[in-house]
Amino acid sequence: MSQYWSPAVRELTPYVPGEQPREQVIKLNTNENPYPPAPGVSEALRNYATDHLRLYPDPTSYALRATLAESYGVSVAETFVGNGSDEVLAFAFQAFFRHDAPLDVPSITYSFYPVYANLYGITLRKHPLNDQWEVDIDSLANASERSGVIFANPNAPTGHAHSLETIEALLKRVTDRVVLVDEAYVDFGAESAVALIGRYPNLLVTGTFSKSRSLAGLRLGYAIGSPELIDGLQRVKDSFNSYPVDSLASLVGIEALKDKEHFKACRNNVITTRERTRLRLEQLGFEVLPSKANFVLAQHPSFEGAQLFAGLRERGILVRHFNTDVLNNFLRITIGTDDEMDSLIEALESLI
Amino acid sequence: MSQYWSPAVRELTPYVPGEQPREQVIKLNTNENPYPPAPGVSEALRNYATDHLRLYPDPTSYALRATLAESYGVSVAETFVGNGSDEVLAFAFQAFFRHDAPLDVPSITYSFYPVYANLYGITLRKHPLNDQWEVDIDSLANASERSGVIFANPNAPTGHAHSLETIEALLKRVTDRVVLVDEAYVDFGAESAVALIGRYPNLLVTGTFSKSRSLAGLRLGYAIGSPELIDGLQRVKDSFNSYPVDSLASLVGIEALKDKEHFKACRNNVITTRERTRLRLEQLGFEVLPSKANFVLAQHPSFEGAQLFAGLRERGILVRHFNTDVLNNFLRITIGTDDEMDSLIEALESLI
Repeated sequence: MSQYWSPAVRELTPYVPGEQPREQVIKLNTNENPYPPAPGVSEALRNYATDHLRLYPDPTSYALRATLAESYGVSVAETFVGNGSDEVLAFAFQAFFRHDAPLDVPSITYSFYPVYANLYGITLRKHPLNDQWEVDIDSLANASERSGVIFANPNAPTGHAHSLETIEALLKRVTDRVVLVDEAYVDFGAESAVALIGRYPNLLVTGTFSKSRSLAGLRLGYAIGSPELIDGLQRVKDSFNSYPVDSLASLVGIEALKDKEHFKACRNNVITTRERTRLRLEQLGFEVLPSKANFVLAQHPSFEGAQLFAGLRERGILVRHFNTDVLNNFLRITIGTDDEMDSLIEALESLI
Repeated sequence: MSQYWSPAVRELTPYVPGEQPREQVIKLNTNENPYPPAPGVSEALRNYATDHLRLYPDPTSYALRATLAESYGVSVAETFVGNGSDEVLAFAFQAFFRHDAPLDVPSITYSFYPVYANLYGITLRKHPLNDQWEVDIDSLANASERSGVIFANPNAPTGHAHSLETIEALLKRVTDRVVLVDEAYVDFGAESAVALIGRYPNLLVTGTFSKSRSLAGLRLGYAIGSPELIDGLQRVKDSFNSYPVDSLASLVGIEALKDKEHFKACRNNVITTRERTRLRLEQLGFEVLPSKANFVLAQHPSFEGAQLFAGLRERGILVRHFNTDVLNNFLRITIGTDDEMDSLIEALESLI
């Protein structure tokens, strides 16, 4: 605590990301993709004329947004890009959720939302998950006098995804404020709400290149929504940083979007490995929540989460353990390659 | 204006960066470096194992900060890096200037400061420049009950820089709040206040890789200050985006810092060309403010700024013109290569 800090900054509880280890481990703790980015990425970087780096990037990121728009069947005016979807989410909190009313969120969801709320002085109204560990859409829709609604679909760290029909049912009931659907994990088997953009001007969908595009190291995220919502994001962005997306990130992002075959192959591999892993965990006695993401949330009736986490760590395998009352007994396990998951299962067999 | 925007966002007046033209022009409008980045940058990108991009970057950017610390003779705990110095400045406004008192700034300085102030609800107290177009350090120091002090040194868009002694005199008088010295242009002939860091725990110096390191396209900026100020910045950063600096930016930034010979050569070229350009502009009848930056601010007694700006533009030369009462008659001209400046002078000769 320093006398020089702003009062609001003294009250912050910053987000703590999963560990980035320096030693060699099997890393199943931050939901990275086990497969490399599209081959075009290497080629683009090898051939890049670095003299171009002396110039500022296009502040509107037009070329990247045009490629994104084409990929998702929307117009460029319905797209926004930022320095990771974390930045896009931070802009959205400022642009849409700073009203004198609470923001409706599931009680268990991406743990960065409460951190943004704290940073921007936004009150949260937390809605418990239903008894199936699912986001309670009815409860979210029923609330009144709100600044907005936000949830992840698939949700984190549970992995459950609601259908497009369910999302649309929510949108029919919440029309006064922005409904933000965070689709960081949507490509691993869930349905995207981008299909609803044209009909609901208050729907904002966010996504990331970190997971299904294998580009966590590049920091690239996006939002898709009505032009008036995109304008709101641009206003915040242009009051914060004229050029949040650098020239190399744009170039690499475009290459990743263009390679649809590579994208599908990696995604299908992850899905196949996830289902295989789920079965094997269940054979070991785990309860595994059904997941449409590139991770599973699992607990064992006879072993504490912290104990298994520590045991795996000793065996060179990192998974994520959350120190909260509700999630304390669970492990969140990222889906890696088949070999990595075999090592995980072997390690768990030796622990159980 | 949209019904979905937060009230505060409706009131924003976003920053407008200099134009990034798509057609071929001589670009002297956004203070980019005319020389390429260090040769090691190309090599590093060519040899980069893109598989590594599937993993998140180090959230602490340790390797880049260690190289920065070594370059500036400070400890790693005294360094911070961000996605351009614009982001670093935005974090600093939140971390240090959100008190119930005005922030002291020169009336003419980097025009992003009022935009940040607006975004974070900070009131500005503007201090006119003195009759030499210099930041009035006395006036800044005299004010009481403040949230902090910020100015650019060299200042933008005037180019004037105060000496280290003058900066230290200010620091002796302002001890209760943060004094932020924005050194985006310091490498082109001014003295850095980093030398004072150890003695003034409330001094924060910010800088950028965009100008003297020829990396505007990469978005990399830094801050150097006491560990308690750096902690304040980290708290805001970790409440906004765990990894604002991507893996490629870190890699490229390190290469740029390591090549001290290239850095000096480019900087010296810019300084030489600047002095040559100043003389030639004066021969054409311009008043040119003395500059320690990679630009000059100049006005002609017989021609309006807007008129010369338009004439140059027609001739394929972009400079910057500010539509404000005080600066209306001036042009801000970035220092390019000697050839580019020859073209500028020829164009002006034809206009005058």
